[in-house]
Amino acid sequence: MSIPNPAQPVPRSCKAVAVQGLRAGMPVQRQDWVVRELPVALEFNGVAHAVMMATPEDLEDFAYGFALSEGIVQQAGQIYGVEIDVGQQCCTVQLEIAGACFARLKEMRRVLAGRTGCGLCGTESLAHAVRLPEPVRSQVLFSARAVSQAMEAMRERQELLALTGSTHAAAWCTPAGDICLVREDVGRHNALDKLIGAMARTGAPLDGGFIAISSRASYEMVQKTAHAGVGLLAAVSGVTSLAIEVAEACGLTLLGFVRGQDCNVYTHAQRFIWETVPCKTAT
Amino acid sequence: MSIPNPAQPVPRSCKAVAVQGLRAGMPVQRQDWVVRELPVALEFNGVAHAVMMATPEDLEDFAYGFALSEGIVQQAGQIYGVEIDVGQQCCTVQLEIAGACFARLKEMRRVLAGRTGCGLCGTESLAHAVRLPEPVRSQVLFSARAVSQAMEAMRERQELLALTGSTHAAAWCTPAGDICLVREDVGRHNALDKLIGAMARTGAPLDGGFIAISSRASYEMVQKTAHAGVGLLAAVSGVTSLAIEVAEACGLTLLGFVRGQDCNVYTHAQRFIWETVPCKTAT
Repeated sequence: MSIPNPAQPVPRSCKAVAVQGLRAGMPVQRQDWVVRELPVALEFNGVAHAVMMATPEDLEDFAYGFALSEGIVQQAGQIYGVEIDVGQQCCTVQLEIAGACFARLKEMRRVLAGRTGCGLCGTESLAHAVRLPEPVRSQVLFSARAVSQAMEAMRERQELLALTGSTHAAAWCTPAGDICLVREDVGRHNALDKLIGAMARTGAPLDGGFIAISSRASYEMVQKTAHAGVGLLAAVSGVTSLAIEVAEACGLTLLGFVRGQDCNVYTHAQRFIWETVPCKTAT
Repeated sequence: MSIPNPAQPVPRSCKAVAVQGLRAGMPVQRQDWVVRELPVALEFNGVAHAVMMATPEDLEDFAYGFALSEGIVQQAGQIYGVEIDVGQQCCTVQLEIAGACFARLKEMRRVLAGRTGCGLCGTESLAHAVRLPEPVRSQVLFSARAVSQAMEAMRERQELLALTGSTHAAAWCTPAGDICLVREDVGRHNALDKLIGAMARTGAPLDGGFIAISSRASYEMVQKTAHAGVGLLAAVSGVTSLAIEVAEACGLTLLGFVRGQDCNVYTHAQRFIWETVPCKTAT
């Protein structure tokens, strides 16, 4: 999107490419930034677990967030070490996790491998068909003004988006609407995992703030947010039916189409303060 | 997005929900459509293979496209039957495929399961780290005008997007810029698989047209398009570094940020005609 400045160092997550194109129908040639996308292989205690396509930035945060979101570990302290090898064509992320977590992961994989049915159909409820997080207990309230303000501020913090026009972001925000952390990735799930992992590594409790995302909110985005104990998820774009059902069931406040002074509140509005105009202080 | 009309039948892929919200800061209550997202379990010859989150529409197309894109079958004729069971909370798609394809699939899964390394790292080239499609041989040329026209027309055909504001689309387009088919889904990969599957079921050769997508073009979108033998992929939004590398390597023409009379051409411009203004006929 933006033209690379030769004096500017190349961001690790971007690549400068030569592009031919049209602007208002006229041929142009220029250099452009594109976001890097690499296969990232995640290994737990030396055993390969998953390969994700991701942007090679904040991979230690990604490792923590993935392990937590997937329920492989219950807390950051169960991760003893993360080694990252970023190559030109792929990355390896090796996690050393607590023995009990690894034993459970092996057992989970054994059960999944041995299953002959689809493992979903024939189940009687949504709770079986999808992973329903524990109930969200956060009692913090969030105002429309804070959510709107954070959403605007996030946009200004999306550095990879400004360069490439091709990334999603997730931000952790205070009840005042201030942004504490932003993480970006070519994939919206990865951006959220990176954010959750980064927060977990700081040791700060997650239930005191809310999460803003630059994308839509599908089931998995709701699942990850609620699993992290966060009370409110605000999406710039729309939500899916399953995102609403899971948010409703586990007590998450779900907002979509948050744009300026517009928003939709789909679930658990009790955590949402409708006021948008700054309160006047007594004079 | 759009307000449900009580006289209108409920589209199978949408759900009407009650929404509280703010419009220009003022509280509103209304009914709204959201897109349905369900776990779709894919089974081959009775054996569970994958569960994808998808929109329960055009699932037979999805079955064909997925099997083709993943290389499980080489042609539509190797799929002998598809049975679909759409439930309230999940869907099952059972494919009956040729014995030779099923034997290869079983062997592939056995090899993957037995691997202890990540299967990616240590490989010497991109060709090993990611699945590089066969070279694209299409010799059809596409003009800037046709691509731009198709992109505009696709927008008007995105019925689920108009209702829910939350879906992606993929369209198969002729060299004249006319749209033959559009498929939509909550996931951009699924929309493309549905389109490829729908085209394969018609038996029409895919190398005579191009594909337009409403999203970004990541590696997987390029991989699926090239694997289907299509010569050009045009994305409304940006592309990733790996998408460019794979498109370059396999001979696919890759366009990004196709908006009105603007576009970027990242690879294989020899298939692209730069003219945007209609040629005047001799008088």
